[in-house]
Amino acid sequence: MKIMIMGAGALGSLIGGLLHLSGFEVILVGRPPHISEIERRGLKISGKMNVTLKIPTSLTPVESDLTILTVKSYDTRSAAKALREFDSPVLSLQNGIGNEETLMEELGGERVIGGVTSYGALRVEPGHVKYTGEGEIVIGEMNGKITERIMMISEIFTRAKMNVRISEDIKMEIWKKAIVNCGINPLTAIAGVKNGVLLEISSLRKLLREVCEEAKRIAEALGITFDEDPVERTFEVAKRTSENFSSMLQDVLNGRRTEIDAINGEIVRTAHSIGAQAPINEALYRLVKVLEGENGRT
Amino acid sequence: MKIMIMGAGALGSLIGGLLHLSGFEVILVGRPPHISEIERRGLKISGKMNVTLKIPTSLTPVESDLTILTVKSYDTRSAAKALREFDSPVLSLQNGIGNEETLMEELGGERVIGGVTSYGALRVEPGHVKYTGEGEIVIGEMNGKITERIMMISEIFTRAKMNVRISEDIKMEIWKKAIVNCGINPLTAIAGVKNGVLLEISSLRKLLREVCEEAKRIAEALGITFDEDPVERTFEVAKRTSENFSSMLQDVLNGRRTEIDAINGEIVRTAHSIGAQAPINEALYRLVKVLEGENGRT
Repeated sequence: MKIMIMGAGALGSLIGGLLHLSGFEVILVGRPPHISEIERRGLKISGKMNVTLKIPTSLTPVESDLTILTVKSYDTRSAAKALREFDSPVLSLQNGIGNEETLMEELGGERVIGGVTSYGALRVEPGHVKYTGEGEIVIGEMNGKITERIMMISEIFTRAKMNVRISEDIKMEIWKKAIVNCGINPLTAIAGVKNGVLLEISSLRKLLREVCEEAKRIAEALGITFDEDPVERTFEVAKRTSENFSSMLQDVLNGRRTEIDAINGEIVRTAHSIGAQAPINEALYRLVKVLEGENGRT
Repeated sequence: MKIMIMGAGALGSLIGGLLHLSGFEVILVGRPPHISEIERRGLKISGKMNVTLKIPTSLTPVESDLTILTVKSYDTRSAAKALREFDSPVLSLQNGIGNEETLMEELGGERVIGGVTSYGALRVEPGHVKYTGEGEIVIGEMNGKITERIMMISEIFTRAKMNVRISEDIKMEIWKKAIVNCGINPLTAIAGVKNGVLLEISSLRKLLREVCEEAKRIAEALGITFDEDPVERTFEVAKRTSENFSSMLQDVLNGRRTEIDAINGEIVRTAHSIGAQAPINEALYRLVKVLEGENGRT
């Protein structure tokens, strides 16, 4: 069983490392300098564990039995194109809305498996990631069926002692995570605060609720039925991760591109596609675009 | 010389108090409970001075030789209508863009005099305002002329030991203040921070610059020529007032209506009126509308 991690950044490297540790054949595909440092000195994981692992790497994709896709959402299409010459099923464990749809466009509906994860990992330096928090991996066929391959993939994560769950409504899970992210990510990035501050300042708390409520209304208009209130869930996540700096805030502070397009941007586009508006998501989208260095015009 | 302060809140009461102290006949027009407390126990001014002044009050406008208008911008039209039956010149010392135009629509061009002020006052409790900072009053005829009445008004403030300056381009002065406000006010309200924090957090500092640059471009497209860079001025004001909580943040925290319509809202409307866009101002406008309790739809 050969597992390729396509997009071995912080999260992909952590997942690859955990799978490698439990005996799976893993190959990490990513970019220098991270990938070249892993090739040279091994993958160092600190935080909740301290190990250095010799894991094979590659700068381009290879044949495998399963591809776990952890590239940033703005790289989904180019990654998908690079995977066209292979046959492996592709499990997306990315952020944002629309990744699975892009993958299906490029690779056909059969190969694509949906997923979300709340495992936490941070870049420390090239070749070194920090395992910041245990989470959950939720996977599911896009058509909701419980297939043999989805059970097999679930078993892979179970063997690696990771928390995994099969969902019969993975689209809902993806939206649930996107709703958490559409509130916590841009607001922490704009205000320059830790997640927990969103609950402490009344203006931020109110904006957090309003932007998530707006996204929830769009999801419901699309026909998604939530198994728990995604807005309440957002508040729970903000509380549980109160000391964390969101990925979007880190991206902004480090001058990197954020995933705002696949989160708030995709919510706005989805709203427009059904003749609705998402003005609060759009406002946050524009402001984060300003912070990214674009001019905020869409 | 009878001077009516129309809209005696914190700033109007302070100005009325300073004029009264130097011997002018002043009448404060405003609303209970502030006005009724002044009627009962006098106007208390603390902060940079500590006095209690017996000043006549009224709940409705009266005949006067000069009206100083300090109502909130969203009350300009109704105040103007209430002033139609009188003849006095009306000096606006309000926040935001468009107040003078509204006054001219209701009262005719002759009566209206433009102005801005950076004097600082806060409500403490009904009947009691705090004089938080000396500033400047800039006044000017809307047509730029140096008239007898503008010199007379200048002399009134000079006698009251206030810093006053006559401008031959009061529209530019109003825009310059609006540009400071369009950045500092909504960003502090959204992020829930003191003015100085806008300079400390890189994302906020960048947004401050971008929103002010955008407003400056709109003003310049309107034909306004600035005598100093309004963006740099905004940064200086944020630095000088670093320990202050902006009026908009105070409004939001106290569940009061803000002046966002006359500031960022008016910049957006002005942009649209000349076929341009002001997306960053619009984004901040929407977010503050959310904080005000509207749904952010414009």
